[in-house]
Amino acid sequence: MTPLVFALPENETIAASLASRIGADRGAAEIRRFPDGESYVRLDTPVAGHEVALVCTLDRPDVKLLPLLFLARLCKDLGAARVGLVAPYLAYMRQDRRFRPGEAITSTYFAEMLSRSVDWMVTIDPHLHRRSSLKEIYPIPARALSAAPLVSRWIRERIREPLLIGPDAESAQWVAAVAAGAGAPYVVLEKERHGDRDVSVSVPQIDRWRHHTPVLVDDIISTGRTMTETARHLLAAGMTAPICVAIHAVFAEKAYTEMLAAGIAEVVTCNTIPHETNRIDVAELLAPAIREIVA
Amino acid sequence: MTPLVFALPENETIAASLASRIGADRGAAEIRRFPDGESYVRLDTPVAGHEVALVCTLDRPDVKLLPLLFLARLCKDLGAARVGLVAPYLAYMRQDRRFRPGEAITSTYFAEMLSRSVDWMVTIDPHLHRRSSLKEIYPIPARALSAAPLVSRWIRERIREPLLIGPDAESAQWVAAVAAGAGAPYVVLEKERHGDRDVSVSVPQIDRWRHHTPVLVDDIISTGRTMTETARHLLAAGMTAPICVAIHAVFAEKAYTEMLAAGIAEVVTCNTIPHETNRIDVAELLAPAIREIVA
Repeated sequence: MTPLVFALPENETIAASLASRIGADRGAAEIRRFPDGESYVRLDTPVAGHEVALVCTLDRPDVKLLPLLFLARLCKDLGAARVGLVAPYLAYMRQDRRFRPGEAITSTYFAEMLSRSVDWMVTIDPHLHRRSSLKEIYPIPARALSAAPLVSRWIRERIREPLLIGPDAESAQWVAAVAAGAGAPYVVLEKERHGDRDVSVSVPQIDRWRHHTPVLVDDIISTGRTMTETARHLLAAGMTAPICVAIHAVFAEKAYTEMLAAGIAEVVTCNTIPHETNRIDVAELLAPAIREIVA
Repeated sequence: MTPLVFALPENETIAASLASRIGADRGAAEIRRFPDGESYVRLDTPVAGHEVALVCTLDRPDVKLLPLLFLARLCKDLGAARVGLVAPYLAYMRQDRRFRPGEAITSTYFAEMLSRSVDWMVTIDPHLHRRSSLKEIYPIPARALSAAPLVSRWIRERIREPLLIGPDAESAQWVAAVAAGAGAPYVVLEKERHGDRDVSVSVPQIDRWRHHTPVLVDDIISTGRTMTETARHLLAAGMTAPICVAIHAVFAEKAYTEMLAAGIAEVVTCNTIPHETNRIDVAELLAPAIREIVA
């Protein structure tokens, strides 16, 4: 039977691209909210006996989770062979231990919840800085793909004499990989975090790179403060307006407008989270991994 | 050990009242959202060995569920003896079968999710019109209390010559019970629903009750359209501006301001959902039921 790909709201574009790449059919579902805030979920396409992939990126996860779990449960209820989740962006990857006593280890709890509802999961560059693999927290088959090669290619093809800049030590390994793929030099900055929103950055010896195009790269843009601070330092030091390239366009609050206001020349992201800055299509990365599972 | 009562955000008032009535301690927890929309949950009060009651009313449930499930899971993780849920308003009680093919039976799915996370539940007047008991959908011990006696008492003590008016056939049984407790006459209207928001109402023979104070009673005020339409009919027929009394103040969208604009004299609700119309305190109803479980 042909595999079926269903899009949760706002995931239609990537779901369509993915379905056509793997030769699956698009499934139709009605997913909406009642005036009182409850969700309504209905399948229009029969799923009995089919392999099902639900496409739902998980930024702003709290409000998205229940419709997703309802849809997964409904597919099982109506006889789907297996139900998997394609989450181009995976939430709750930060809190993977108790930094303070009494804290909820939300990355584990969230993984438990998803794993009770779906049979497999595929995601892109989850924030695995203290874990080496999704297997440590996800009991179901869970595969993490890397968008670094796509980011490298975009930089290589579009930017003249790029200098890749990693915003903090955490990003070092990832920036090194992107730089290697792009055949470009890179530096890693030091970041100090003072709270959820406040970040200060120091930029070591930038004189050496004055004739390069600075390309700030990171896995996620959330508040954008790190990118904004770094851009201000680079501009103050007389460098060209930097380009920011990231995988996940989370853009909390006014992050995007603040980044542009700070003098960043361009922001470029992968389409793991729909946003006007999406320039790099991850469907070609997802397709072979999903095909391998459902074909 | 003393039982512990934790309030999810916006449930502090009723949790405090409940804790003091049953001789439990208030537990402290930090529950907040990161700028990217993820939730942070931390217990300040040790729970090991304690009976724990989490107070979380479930209007607008989608955004509330994840912090609640995280907190329940955390209490278990940190050794609570049992974790229960006090949900003065319980969500997802409408979709208890497939009205159309392919629909998610969300009342069952939601019950499954909650039941995996908590050991018991207490709620008030769930919308059980096609089910006779919560036991049919909740595998954990789940108790439904009735606020009808509190509503009856409020009407008996505050309204002179009330005529209770039930907005539709579904409400008949409940209105009859409230009327009996209030020692007042009642009529039940006929309602026609054309969509999520559109409702028309016909009022049979109101001349007989022209000297009474019309009191519209219902279990939930959601869009408020039923109450608004009914009030317009009563006013057009020359009756006094009606008072609306309900248990659950869901008030979807602009329901409350529209009700007042339609000429309703006063809206009175129980405090199962915090709202400025709350006049009837359900803590005295909840306390004995919770004490029985945790004491």
